[in-house]
Amino acid sequence: MPQQERSNETRAHILEAATDLFARHGYEATGVAEICAQAGVSKGAFYHHFPTKQAVFLELLDGWLAGLDAELEKARAGAANVPEALVSMAGVAGGILAAGRGQLPLFLEFWTQAAHDPEVWRATIEPYHRFRNYFSGLFQAGIREGSLRPVDPTLAAQVFLSLATGLVLQGLLDPEGADWLRVTREGVQAFLRAYARTGGESGHR
Amino acid sequence: MPQQERSNETRAHILEAATDLFARHGYEATGVAEICAQAGVSKGAFYHHFPTKQAVFLELLDGWLAGLDAELEKARAGAANVPEALVSMAGVAGGILAAGRGQLPLFLEFWTQAAHDPEVWRATIEPYHRFRNYFSGLFQAGIREGSLRPVDPTLAAQVFLSLATGLVLQGLLDPEGADWLRVTREGVQAFLRAYARTGGESGHR
Repeated sequence: MPQQERSNETRAHILEAATDLFARHGYEATGVAEICAQAGVSKGAFYHHFPTKQAVFLELLDGWLAGLDAELEKARAGAANVPEALVSMAGVAGGILAAGRGQLPLFLEFWTQAAHDPEVWRATIEPYHRFRNYFSGLFQAGIREGSLRPVDPTLAAQVFLSLATGLVLQGLLDPEGADWLRVTREGVQAFLRAYARTGGESGHR
Repeated sequence: MPQQERSNETRAHILEAATDLFARHGYEATGVAEICAQAGVSKGAFYHHFPTKQAVFLELLDGWLAGLDAELEKARAGAANVPEALVSMAGVAGGILAAGRGQLPLFLEFWTQAAHDPEVWRATIEPYHRFRNYFSGLFQAGIREGSLRPVDPTLAAQVFLSLATGLVLQGLLDPEGADWLRVTREGVQAFLRAYARTGGESGHR
């Protein structure tokens, strides 16, 4: 097998082993040695790919966020306009909650450590800023196409992200506490009643 | 000094010492012995008031939530109707964020531990349910007085709490990332455009 391919495979084994061990034993209780043992790689190979255990976690987070980006793009590409895209994105929430289910203790544990490390903290905050820019751009497009009212798109994006963050957090904290997919759909409808030009309907082309 | 008064004072000293030590050294790194030393009380006195260190944390959380309840009630009592109350409550967000500033690492650390203890987890989730009931009741009153549209008040409360939770979380994670008080005001206005009968205005009595 070519060297590049073998290297990619090693990386994938490390990420897979780390995912499993973090979920089963937590972040703090999992050491690089255990990850290496389960992945069947040497410590040398591990440190060739990742400078620290933290870097492994951040890469897992990146992968999860990249999947989310792709789902949002798909929802947008398949929609006739921005309000339709938002309604379609509400359906993505189910996948986010399913993927995150049972992972909250792990995230909390990681963030607890990240809170003491400004560099890691910045890396975990950065996706928020990226999503804010994404939605700000989306709302700008909605204003341009005439489907959204001419509001401040950044402020609207901050409101939208607050709603989305709160929904995901509550869904993870308290999965049985509500029908979170229904609440998400209602949240998007409320957002559209507040920001869409025709009161949440999208057939105005 | 009467015994009851001395007992209340001991309790207050313990809570004060714990607040200071948790903030300075974190939850995990603070032991009951250190709390007792700083509070100037015996371990016997400590355990007379609190079964565990966790109980101290939960009492601090309760105190913070009771302050929040009181502020919400004050906002409601001073308002002519429910939309006005919500606008006035947006102003409370500044106080919540100020009180929580710098406390996020501590909360994360506590929740990390709580995540492994179903009983403590329930105690930390319970306030969410209480707030949901509070806002559901508030929105019911708004529907009754004719200021809000006749929606499902529980669903509206879940949307409102998602928005509020997301705002507080983002404000604590990323205090410099936005003018969170402005975003909060915009969020309440958006909520009212979506749910108020007269599009967010409140002068319809």
